[in-house]
Amino acid sequence: MSDQDMRLDVGLLHYPVYNRRREAVASAVTTLDLHDISRSARTYDVRRFFVITPLEDQRRLVERVRRHWVEGYGARYNPDRRAAIELLTVVASLHQALERIREEEGERPLVVATDATGQSGRRITYGALRHLLRERRPVLLLFGTAWGLHRDVLEGADHCLAPIDGKSDYNHLSVRTAAGIILDRLVGRGVKDIEEE
Amino acid sequence: MSDQDMRLDVGLLHYPVYNRRREAVASAVTTLDLHDISRSARTYDVRRFFVITPLEDQRRLVERVRRHWVEGYGARYNPDRRAAIELLTVVASLHQALERIREEEGERPLVVATDATGQSGRRITYGALRHLLRERRPVLLLFGTAWGLHRDVLEGADHCLAPIDGKSDYNHLSVRTAAGIILDRLVGRGVKDIEEE
Repeated sequence: MSDQDMRLDVGLLHYPVYNRRREAVASAVTTLDLHDISRSARTYDVRRFFVITPLEDQRRLVERVRRHWVEGYGARYNPDRRAAIELLTVVASLHQALERIREEEGERPLVVATDATGQSGRRITYGALRHLLRERRPVLLLFGTAWGLHRDVLEGADHCLAPIDGKSDYNHLSVRTAAGIILDRLVGRGVKDIEEE
Repeated sequence: MSDQDMRLDVGLLHYPVYNRRREAVASAVTTLDLHDISRSARTYDVRRFFVITPLEDQRRLVERVRRHWVEGYGARYNPDRRAAIELLTVVASLHQALERIREEEGERPLVVATDATGQSGRRITYGALRHLLRERRPVLLLFGTAWGLHRDVLEGADHCLAPIDGKSDYNHLSVRTAAGIILDRLVGRGVKDIEEE
């Protein structure tokens, strides 16, 4: 498989997600998420990084960050960052992200939700999803901000990826870190080194 | 191997590291690094997360963050965060971190440096380091802030871990994300799932 072949997009959902009292909310955008996840997306050959929020002022904020690094002073100051932030695409809803992908791909992507609680149905293993990506199935990998993706999103997804099982029962990675680890498990070349031992 | 058996510490070095013009500097502490890497350390059963900086005001800043989350309001507000930040240990130099580990372990740890450029000598594979950890060798895994660990640190290390090879030539992950990915490769249970495919 050449590097061009994979058809993987990543989405970071800000609504509907849970707050700490498990109420459905629209979370605020964390600008560092934009940077860190863009950099991971670029590293693992993700095509687009969708930032999804229904809040118009938040979309404007993301758009401002994007323009600074892609067209403004940031692009000259740090071309490496530009190459990452270029993947950033702001939309108002999951539906809009899916429509965008469908327009460009001619088919609806598989929606694969991530869920740190592991309570969701339709589980898919990392290995099985690696296989689907190698077969060039379009996939939208979905991450939730705040306390995680709302149950409706998990139930509407085609698959839910098994939670990251570290080496303890502690399960509170930042979404920035979790996105990097999951991309490495799905796409990373380094896994081969581990497999060969 | 039980979860208690591994003897892995993580260090985040703020001096000597490179700035963007490849000059040796002491970098400023990023508080989000403290949170994200603590959370990853707790997830992957790392024993201590050493934050290493010779700058006294920066050590005071880190100590203030630690106290807020371990003893102050933060500990009540978010006990999960407390469990992570508890691993945080502030020292002035790499030497002090090594002395601390030697006192507690009765032996000097292997120092394994990470280096995104891949130009350093004495390479070790992820698989080989996994093996050493399973054998209960004490290991201090060292990450650099800013533009990476100074050459003197790389040359003084026992081993240098191969860079994270994503799926592109892009090699600019945040240190927060890189630490999570490397811990997952070295310690994560999820790799087994991938290996079995």
